[in-house]
Amino acid sequence: MLGEFDFIAKRLRPLAAGTAAALDLEDDAALLDPSPGMSLVVTKDAMVAGVHFLEDDPPGQIAQKLLRVNLSDLAAMGAAPVGYLLALARPKVLTDDWLADFCQGLAEDQAEFGIGLLGGDTVSTPGPLTLSLTALGQVPKGQALRRRGARTGDDLFVSGTLGDAALGLLVLQGKVDPPAAARAFLIERYRLPQPRLALGQALRGLAYAAIDISDGLLADLGHILETSGVGAELLADQLPLSAAARDLPGVRDAALAGGDDYELLFAVPRERRGEIPALARRLDLQLTRIGRIEAGSGLRIVDAGGREIRSPRAGWQHF
Amino acid sequence: MLGEFDFIAKRLRPLAAGTAAALDLEDDAALLDPSPGMSLVVTKDAMVAGVHFLEDDPPGQIAQKLLRVNLSDLAAMGAAPVGYLLALARPKVLTDDWLADFCQGLAEDQAEFGIGLLGGDTVSTPGPLTLSLTALGQVPKGQALRRRGARTGDDLFVSGTLGDAALGLLVLQGKVDPPAAARAFLIERYRLPQPRLALGQALRGLAYAAIDISDGLLADLGHILETSGVGAELLADQLPLSAAARDLPGVRDAALAGGDDYELLFAVPRERRGEIPALARRLDLQLTRIGRIEAGSGLRIVDAGGREIRSPRAGWQHF
Repeated sequence: MLGEFDFIAKRLRPLAAGTAAALDLEDDAALLDPSPGMSLVVTKDAMVAGVHFLEDDPPGQIAQKLLRVNLSDLAAMGAAPVGYLLALARPKVLTDDWLADFCQGLAEDQAEFGIGLLGGDTVSTPGPLTLSLTALGQVPKGQALRRRGARTGDDLFVSGTLGDAALGLLVLQGKVDPPAAARAFLIERYRLPQPRLALGQALRGLAYAAIDISDGLLADLGHILETSGVGAELLADQLPLSAAARDLPGVRDAALAGGDDYELLFAVPRERRGEIPALARRLDLQLTRIGRIEAGSGLRIVDAGGREIRSPRAGWQHF
Repeated sequence: MLGEFDFIAKRLRPLAAGTAAALDLEDDAALLDPSPGMSLVVTKDAMVAGVHFLEDDPPGQIAQKLLRVNLSDLAAMGAAPVGYLLALARPKVLTDDWLADFCQGLAEDQAEFGIGLLGGDTVSTPGPLTLSLTALGQVPKGQALRRRGARTGDDLFVSGTLGDAALGLLVLQGKVDPPAAARAFLIERYRLPQPRLALGQALRGLAYAAIDISDGLLADLGHILETSGVGAELLADQLPLSAAARDLPGVRDAALAGGDDYELLFAVPRERRGEIPALARRLDLQLTRIGRIEAGSGLRIVDAGGREIRSPRAGWQHF
């Protein structure tokens, strides 16, 4: 196994080469000059092998998922990414090939998202591979999207499709067995989230509240409602489902409560509802109205006939 | 054990309460407005139980060491701390009391260093407690201290005393057995580093290169020499030793190669050597000249008689 200094020199320094703020990883810290008029957005997520990803997931995709879940947090605030720091606690069993693939995954995503490695730390662990990533982004001052801004009457929209990632995990666990093409699609949705960065930035000045769906639609919508001090009606039959997921058992549970989709959930004032279709076309991204913000508190889930299928007190009733 | 949301609400949110940028931990990311004219300094260190601290170290001191090793990185760049993000991968065996003590340690250090929690992540792990902390600081643009600035003829200074932390670890491991007072001092030096923040900021415009000693004097001086493209002469008999350490076996090895002291090593142009004693008095901090930068490359360690006691090729010769 490459020692720490060799690993940094051979694998990590190239990832920092294009980013002046990284100081070639020569120093103990990165040195950034935020653009004038911009606020800095900073987020940090951790992942543990066997908990947040499967031990035999492809290393490049583990790296990319780690990076992308953080970029998704930036997207939810309407920020553009700037760079990231990585902490990697690695068990001795990790081979150089594994680490090379891991770093190759980072390199590809750096190119895709136009960011670079700024710094971090590499340590050894007797436990499972444990990763932590800090992503930095920027957003024009005063324009960051928050969870707390939803207002009564706002329409609730969600990007993409819901439940795919949770179903992808079930596929990997052998609990669901769809046809081959659906299988590949769902697994990729689990392993390789698409941070909705362009959407988040486009929602500045348009959405009053936004969040990325990492814990599941119900939980994350709950965060918007709680911080905004409002309730909501959710239209269960409007939840966007992919062709791969649509006919699988448990798809509605997955769409409502499954995590890891990393789509954006956002509230738009009703009078600007009409701007959403053009935005969806421009971004080539499905944007679906799935409910609306109501006065009061709590979440009502209704079916196509307007019948309530969940009471806040009784908890979620399975379909 | 408190669930993640309860842990955040009960233990972490209070740590973020005084810091507007933390957004009450309501959102997925922190939102900072760096001061005009300042560069942002960002560093990230990870620690693993059993590797970087001992399982039975006091939880509050584990938290403080984690925070302080990062603040030490900021100090080495001449930065003032702003805040931090914490990622905590916790095993199920950690009790609520343990976590309460851990957070109490953070609260005390937040007050001491004038900073707050900005965000982070809490996950569970089947492995050992694994911590990662990202510290943010700021420094006036163009004034950050780097490792790479040392020039031929500069004097080399170090703060505090060297080798205490390495000896403190040996004490905890039962390998060295000093008198009780020395014992307590050395253990504290291992467990509770003092980030030299005031010194780092005072060295802006005075030191041409600086680093904090985390890997040991020889290794960290090596980083300055390598990045600066220079060599150095190190005066072995001038290494500052504490009264507690002075007479212990292995003290010189500890001072030269032991890690974890988190003192600052810095290069000052010879014509400004005279400013150091006043700075030491003002900061109430020992500052000792331990050598000088030379042309060429490599490190010569000489004894009181000027005899070379290490050759770069042969490696380090034990006393």
